[in-house]
Amino acid sequence: MLQPPVIALMTDFGLEDAFVGVMKGVIATICREARVIDLTHAISPQNVRQAAFHLDRSIAYFPDGTIFVSVIDPGVGTARRAIGVQAGPYFFIAPDNGLLTTIFKRWPEAKCHELTNANYQLANPSATFHGRDLFTPAAAHLAAGVPLEAFGPAINVAECARIELWQNTPLDNGNGWQGEVIATDHFGNLITSFEAGMLADGSNWQVTVGNSAPPLRIVRTYGEVEQGKPLAYIGSSGMIEIAIRNGNASAKLGVGDGDVVELCRGEFHARPAVG
Amino acid sequence: MLQPPVIALMTDFGLEDAFVGVMKGVIATICREARVIDLTHAISPQNVRQAAFHLDRSIAYFPDGTIFVSVIDPGVGTARRAIGVQAGPYFFIAPDNGLLTTIFKRWPEAKCHELTNANYQLANPSATFHGRDLFTPAAAHLAAGVPLEAFGPAINVAECARIELWQNTPLDNGNGWQGEVIATDHFGNLITSFEAGMLADGSNWQVTVGNSAPPLRIVRTYGEVEQGKPLAYIGSSGMIEIAIRNGNASAKLGVGDGDVVELCRGEFHARPAVG
Amino acid sequence: MLQPPVIALMTDFGLEDAFVGVMKGVIATICREARVIDLTHAISPQNVRQAAFHLDRSIAYFPDGTIFVSVIDPGVGTARRAIGVQAGPYFFIAPDNGLLTTIFKRWPEAKCHELTNANYQLANPSATFHGRDLFTPAAAHLAAGVPLEAFGPAINVAECARIELWQNTPLDNGNGWQGEVIATDHFGNLITSFEAGMLADGSNWQVTVGNSAPPLRIVRTYGEVEQGKPLAYIGSSGMIEIAIRNGNASAKLGVGDGDVVELCRGEFHARPAVG
Repeated sequence: MLQPPVIALMTDFGLEDAFVGVMKGVIATICREARVIDLTHAISPQNVRQAAFHLDRSIAYFPDGTIFVSVIDPGVGTARRAIGVQAGPYFFIAPDNGLLTTIFKRWPEAKCHELTNANYQLANPSATFHGRDLFTPAAAHLAAGVPLEAFGPAINVAECARIELWQNTPLDNGNGWQGEVIATDHFGNLITSFEAGMLADGSNWQVTVGNSAPPLRIVRTYGEVEQGKPLAYIGSSGMIEIAIRNGNASAKLGVGDGDVVELCRGEFHARPAVG
Repeated sequence: MLQPPVIALMTDFGLEDAFVGVMKGVIATICREARVIDLTHAISPQNVRQAAFHLDRSIAYFPDGTIFVSVIDPGVGTARRAIGVQAGPYFFIAPDNGLLTTIFKRWPEAKCHELTNANYQLANPSATFHGRDLFTPAAAHLAAGVPLEAFGPAINVAECARIELWQNTPLDNGNGWQGEVIATDHFGNLITSFEAGMLADGSNWQVTVGNSAPPLRIVRTYGEVEQGKPLAYIGSSGMIEIAIRNGNASAKLGVGDGDVVELCRGEFHARPAVG
Repeated sequence: MLQPPVIALMTDFGLEDAFVGVMKGVIATICREARVIDLTHAISPQNVRQAAFHLDRSIAYFPDGTIFVSVIDPGVGTARRAIGVQAGPYFFIAPDNGLLTTIFKRWPEAKCHELTNANYQLANPSATFHGRDLFTPAAAHLAAGVPLEAFGPAINVAECARIELWQNTPLDNGNGWQGEVIATDHFGNLITSFEAGMLADGSNWQVTVGNSAPPLRIVRTYGEVEQGKPLAYIGSSGMIEIAIRNGNASAKLGVGDGDVVELCRGEFHARPAVG
């Protein structure tokens, strides 16, 4: 039996208004059988980079064929293109503003078409809500079986917009990296730009955040430190995270998105580690 | 093949508690195949007028046959009636408190029945949560095929409650209207009571909000002004909106729901326009 | 025709991140036809007791066979067990941390298995996100027809963790109880630890909250007091609640979770009642 298609939605629209509900109404009108999943609608307004991070870290948990609709779109109504992309086992519908940078990095051979065919848009699209008028109709028609080619002219993904992603720069002493906090989650946990793979050489790696806090050894989970104490660990997103056990690290340490973090071999730290 | 029915939910219940989840449990018990869509659950507590606006501006994006359940119900447990309405291609389930004012205005011939039949309510309904005990059971039974007539006695919609909607009053100089901010969205954009149709004569229309801000010309989209600058445009709801490009107009201008706005032909403004 | 299975989710993950969306991606991968319902994702971080209350008061509104996944899990990654439970007409998937205390109380003969079978977990589970890697995969495999026995060894529920639930202590004068506020809802209504059944003897019961407020008689619904006035009534959860009509009782009375309340026969109150 054919499985119903899956459409995953990510926006910066919030849930206070009817924006997301209306997008789901559009999908139900075009492709009633689609399963619609909210990835999140709480991306910070116009924060394309944050959206790119969440998308990159989420896709592996969705079934093959999932259509990801991502509408973080500061350029809505301007000349920025709308694109539909087939990459690996997935489809992506988004403005061409760099939101898919990590997707293009994973799958440089991805197939991309501009979404220009008015047959697959709402009539009289607005200049400010392409999520409703253009992106979800495209996703729903794709879910209903319209081939990607039908939506508009092919684009070479090499010509699609990219954004600068999080980067780590080597420390002067050659024994680690300086990076940044790239996201803060609901619990106040700080997600850093350090990937788990950076720990692979088995050194005594330690993480420093803020100016006054002592370096933190990498532990496996919250239970390995006392209540209220800070810890560093490989988070569920595959990045190193900093948390306070049963507490809010962002609030307690006064650290947030964009703040500097350091990953350094322990023997080169001036201060003793905790955790 | 028969399409599964669609039920759209709008409440002021928020998502912190289990209220909405429980309503969906009730629907799944009665009509498992229904597709349930959250329009929004963030209507300000007891704000029937705000709910009427969101409902009015959303319905066109839903498929024919959609059953809209709206529970903003300050009179729950009192003598106010619960009603089921068939209007145009849609069904509406709501308290009879004016929430459907714009629906009755669009479809004065709508069919309306009071929801009195205890067979289509939960046993021992509470006096404070008719969303769970009365409104969603009615919607789910309707979705499952029970005809509207079966729910209770017919009511002439002319006798249903109405609320006073947003209104615009002509300016003394005869060259425009005074209106109000009727909603503020997630981005801080201000939705005014001025409908797009009011611009139809092609005049040099300008919008003023607050006391000190200069009038704003109507532009097409955000990209037409510089970052951080205010603009006025026809919003996706068909009303004129005021925004700050990549900013929060409500916060920056100190303006919110109910505040006065003015739409005036530009040559009659004392101050020069921007935007 | 076989009804699609229902999975109800409750977590303390919030909706700001992609945690919940990813869990739904996992379910869609394993059991596409499952209907997923969000009970709530706004449990206070690590508040197992609050979660136990919401679960206990919600299950009756869900269809037989519903699989409740509850992930409020301060001990994630430690030795605490993960369990799958069949109790009455329902299934429960949760950490063994007392979250199911009221379920075990209702159904002491419940069947319980530890979730140890790696075939029904994601490969390489993380140490911090068992909601994604262990609990939702278990729920989805259960929904897809895997029998509970297949997930791991049987556990006697008598050996499962319990938490101390809300308790009422008799007043010294023998004419009532002292209890507590066990939850505050979206409207600011205060849900007390007093169950409706405690009023059964028909006495002139009155509720006192805070130090200065006069006792409140029990009324049936909001409409029985004036706008802005406090009232006590049997709430939709079956507990006695305290509200302000069209206002926020928690804010206005300065009362919140854990605060003391008193239920007392009226003739034994020193102060006259209102409401």
